[in-house]
Amino acid sequence: MARIERVAFCGLGIMGSPMAANLARAGFELSVWTRTAQKAERFAAEHGARAAATPAEAAEGAEATITMVPDAPEVESVLFAAAPALGEGALAIDMSTIAPTAARAIGQRLEQDGIDFLEGPVSGSRPKAEDGTLTIMAGGEDAAFERALPLFEAMGERIVHVGPRGHGQLAKLLTNTMGAVNAAALAESVVVVKKAGLNPEAFLEVAAGSAGGSTVLGLKGGPMFERDFGPLFKLDHMLKDVRHCLAEARALGVELRLGTVAETLYARAAEAGHGEEDFAAVLTAVE
Amino acid sequence: MARIERVAFCGLGIMGSPMAANLARAGFELSVWTRTAQKAERFAAEHGARAAATPAEAAEGAEATITMVPDAPEVESVLFAAAPALGEGALAIDMSTIAPTAARAIGQRLEQDGIDFLEGPVSGSRPKAEDGTLTIMAGGEDAAFERALPLFEAMGERIVHVGPRGHGQLAKLLTNTMGAVNAAALAESVVVVKKAGLNPEAFLEVAAGSAGGSTVLGLKGGPMFERDFGPLFKLDHMLKDVRHCLAEARALGVELRLGTVAETLYARAAEAGHGEEDFAAVLTAVE
Repeated sequence: MARIERVAFCGLGIMGSPMAANLARAGFELSVWTRTAQKAERFAAEHGARAAATPAEAAEGAEATITMVPDAPEVESVLFAAAPALGEGALAIDMSTIAPTAARAIGQRLEQDGIDFLEGPVSGSRPKAEDGTLTIMAGGEDAAFERALPLFEAMGERIVHVGPRGHGQLAKLLTNTMGAVNAAALAESVVVVKKAGLNPEAFLEVAAGSAGGSTVLGLKGGPMFERDFGPLFKLDHMLKDVRHCLAEARALGVELRLGTVAETLYARAAEAGHGEEDFAAVLTAVE
Repeated sequence: MARIERVAFCGLGIMGSPMAANLARAGFELSVWTRTAQKAERFAAEHGARAAATPAEAAEGAEATITMVPDAPEVESVLFAAAPALGEGALAIDMSTIAPTAARAIGQRLEQDGIDFLEGPVSGSRPKAEDGTLTIMAGGEDAAFERALPLFEAMGERIVHVGPRGHGQLAKLLTNTMGAVNAAALAESVVVVKKAGLNPEAFLEVAAGSAGGSTVLGLKGGPMFERDFGPLFKLDHMLKDVRHCLAEARALGVELRLGTVAETLYARAAEAGHGEEDFAAVLTAVE
């Protein structure tokens, strides 16, 4: 299989834009498509890429097409539209977070057109996307993973081939659900700290060195006390991931009790209008 | 106030024993008491300390008495028994984790005998107690904290004066409850990973670099997959801390929804006979 040189990148959102920029920086010949045409043109001008008017136009001549979009319906509409242009032997890599069952179904359908499909959902919000230090949780065949590796290395730092298709997505859903639960538990503590009049700095300092330490404590502890909900990862997206995770677990016969409470809290925050804010805004549902 | 040279240490359990050993190593003149007389004698022989038959005998001539025992009733019985021997101007330091309200009441009663009282609950299980790298969450007056600092420095690394009496204990209860929730959420993930046939090593590797990363993931992820529940921190003690935390929060008018689910899960594991095992055994309540 030829080394990948030309890459189509579809979806230039909070995450997709810096990820695509890192591919351009690494020397890949890039064509880009995103829902808003001006955004693609601006990106193309800035990073020496080619802006495409449709996913199919972006995929034209590319050995690999990457999707970084909100959920499975968007992945399907992009990849199924691009498939005829991709052609036999091409590789489609979905780096969005979607349900494992949906990922498997998309892979099967693309295979019928001779297109390899690999999933590579990521962890780490915008700063890690910019630094090219994302964690990438790949799911698919060994050969597809090997072909995609140079692309992943341009975007990520911890790159793990978790297993067959669906296993990368399931790992992503589980880790995000842990993050959602940990952040909601942090929000509960923040509310108590405020009510009791504890010193927030002292609390965050001891918490970081305690059994309650976590990635979200370091990232969201300060913002929660300051009520800074500028989105690094949108609450609506976290809620979507938790819901996919609960559904997958249920299909396996496992009831996630903490995950279910988290779902209730994030849903309440979303209903109150915090869906476009950072998921740290789960605090509003605890208050 | 004179520098503390002679210290009475009461409670040589999983945590107390290495903490007292670090005080001896740092040059403090140590007398020790614990429930089992032979344990105190063995410790005394090994570390050049004096074994005492009662808390009062241990406190005789000491400028400071430290307690490291399971809960408030034990703290009270030790310190109230030792108080007459301690004498005016002495310092009592409780490093156990107990309810903030109980800590405040104990402090008030000791003050009537002219004894200063400081709380200094710790985070970090046995390995950090051995290395002298505990996190210490002090609550009390500035003067008492300053006097205790050389002792704390022999046992801990991250030493924070959180605030007045009760605030150290509340910080400890909140951080442990976050740890309890994070560990239970991890257990939920572990059960799904097993059911879905995901590779445990790959899962733990990506999880460590994900939004779901946490102190308990690093400490308990491996043991949960291996079902190694050898106690570094007993499940019964975690359950006690979560219950104290829920009660304190409720008194402040805050309902901890995730904390409540965690309480149910740890209680179920304890009822099934896992109370003396490590709190990683919360896994058994999720399965």
